[in-house]
Amino acid sequence: MVKIIIDAMGGDHAPGEVVKGSVEALSRFEDIEITLVGQQEALEKALEGMSYPEGRLKTVFASQVIETGEVPVRAVRQKKDSSMVVGMRLLAGGEGDAFISAGSTGALLTAGILIVHTVPGVHRPALAPILPTARDPFMLIDCGANVDCKPVNLQQFAMMGSIYMQEVAGKENPRVGLINIGAEEEKGNELTRTVYQELQKMPINFIGNVEARDIPEGNADVLVCDAFVGNVVLKFMEGLASTMFTMLKKELMATKFSSILALGLKKRFASFKKSMDYTEYGGAPLLGLNKCVIKAHGSSNAKAFCSAIRQAREFSQNDLSGKVREGIARAGAAFTRDV
Amino acid sequence: MVKIIIDAMGGDHAPGEVVKGSVEALSRFEDIEITLVGQQEALEKALEGMSYPEGRLKTVFASQVIETGEVPVRAVRQKKDSSMVVGMRLLAGGEGDAFISAGSTGALLTAGILIVHTVPGVHRPALAPILPTARDPFMLIDCGANVDCKPVNLQQFAMMGSIYMQEVAGKENPRVGLINIGAEEEKGNELTRTVYQELQKMPINFIGNVEARDIPEGNADVLVCDAFVGNVVLKFMEGLASTMFTMLKKELMATKFSSILALGLKKRFASFKKSMDYTEYGGAPLLGLNKCVIKAHGSSNAKAFCSAIRQAREFSQNDLSGKVREGIARAGAAFTRDV
Repeated sequence: MVKIIIDAMGGDHAPGEVVKGSVEALSRFEDIEITLVGQQEALEKALEGMSYPEGRLKTVFASQVIETGEVPVRAVRQKKDSSMVVGMRLLAGGEGDAFISAGSTGALLTAGILIVHTVPGVHRPALAPILPTARDPFMLIDCGANVDCKPVNLQQFAMMGSIYMQEVAGKENPRVGLINIGAEEEKGNELTRTVYQELQKMPINFIGNVEARDIPEGNADVLVCDAFVGNVVLKFMEGLASTMFTMLKKELMATKFSSILALGLKKRFASFKKSMDYTEYGGAPLLGLNKCVIKAHGSSNAKAFCSAIRQAREFSQNDLSGKVREGIARAGAAFTRDV
Repeated sequence: MVKIIIDAMGGDHAPGEVVKGSVEALSRFEDIEITLVGQQEALEKALEGMSYPEGRLKTVFASQVIETGEVPVRAVRQKKDSSMVVGMRLLAGGEGDAFISAGSTGALLTAGILIVHTVPGVHRPALAPILPTARDPFMLIDCGANVDCKPVNLQQFAMMGSIYMQEVAGKENPRVGLINIGAEEEKGNELTRTVYQELQKMPINFIGNVEARDIPEGNADVLVCDAFVGNVVLKFMEGLASTMFTMLKKELMATKFSSILALGLKKRFASFKKSMDYTEYGGAPLLGLNKCVIKAHGSSNAKAFCSAIRQAREFSQNDLSGKVREGIARAGAAFTRDV
């Protein structure tokens, strides 16, 4: 049994979609147990009339909720009875194998570091979403809080991303690329030029620099960058895709004739849109913590929660945190000592 | 008369499309003169059979060509008789008001700095393309060589971008934003957090941080960043748009029925694709040099060259380099002294 704890109050559609997704996952996977953490009234209302295997669904009540705009450290420290903090404490205390939240990214990272702690040797944990390309999805690491990085941080991101894609996503010998502004090894800023040299010495399948232009092609399984660049890539992908859909729609609705033709293609457009939607691939794991913590997208619906639960199950069944611990220990000598 | 010098050998379609675009521009604008610089045989062949006002089109022969892969400084120093170096020297020597090239970006920047020199007070010139959004296009500054920036560089980029959008693009009181990973002023890395404070004190219309997600919305006229981030945004936009077109096409061709409907929408798709094509807006000016230098996109066709020529004409007629000189001098005291 994999025991998954879920912050039922996080995200734009909490607790309704969180609960629905959890119930769906319970019927899909018979080897999981779920603990929903949230405000009693809201949780009970969301569960009303639902049918689920009662032996595998628990609820734990928490009176507070951490909101999106709150300062992470203060929120985690002060709201001790929030669904996020209570859930993370249950995880740290051994009451579960994984914790999923669609709440504030900053608060989740902070709670993870303060309560579950990082794997020995890991300087900073990373937030690493899985993103779509024209071919297979890839892991973008880091999109979290590490906006001013040292080379050692990127080395560790590369290592952890490679382990995840091998163990959880089933990629044999994952291709690890460094996001850079040119393909040649002398290209880039101070950070990427140094990291390029260091990544060549690591026990990973380093394929060199990857220019932003080539990201959507899908030639790498892991793309490494600092969190500033990672956030720009992640958010720009979201924004550009959404603006392009809007512009295309406007263009197709320009005449009556084109509107009618476009209507006939509705299914195709929906399928195209879906192929660009990264919530399909589950959430973003926080790599480098002692236990599995997954950040689900703030706009997650029941299906996205169900995907994140599947992901947490695979993460735990494959003992990813243990493998990260071993990997980091094994590669220890290869890390630069500039922290 | 505005005298425009053109590197006839730069870009993927040189010299054919360069020459075609120049001839087109001569017929569109009666107040310009063009000097084409390039290899005699290639130039003469490209001009064969074309009709143009001979008094307004000159040719200057240069025996060498700087290729894309060459190391910029070495290429500019050694290939003294290349079309790019000869053209830049003509500009510096007062034989023209502006210089356009679709050749190597690095070589053009280097030649600009070494031969035309930066405006007094400007620490580093910037390469600033104009990019499409759902509304009006914006200037992304810097996308050049400044991958490790000090706050003063970004302050100057903001100033120069604002002057360009006001004087050349005709925007009243241009909105200047800082690309960052959050809207709040305390968000970002060391560089952006400092720059945010400094931009507030500058004589520009600073609208604060702009998240990458909101770039395609078109809420700013100038977006400031270091060249690493600028290159990521620029290249990712290119790559993502192109991959999305390919994916959409594949999706629409999935069945016979959808293929037929899509065929009827061909014109609409072409118009949509065009709206995302940044070569429509001309080239990327190099801001901060003593004279007008414009980098045309490597894949420029005749139309794109014609747009770049129009842009060079407006740049020169508005004496943009002079206005940048005045602006930088006036704002001198506001720049941080950390270089």
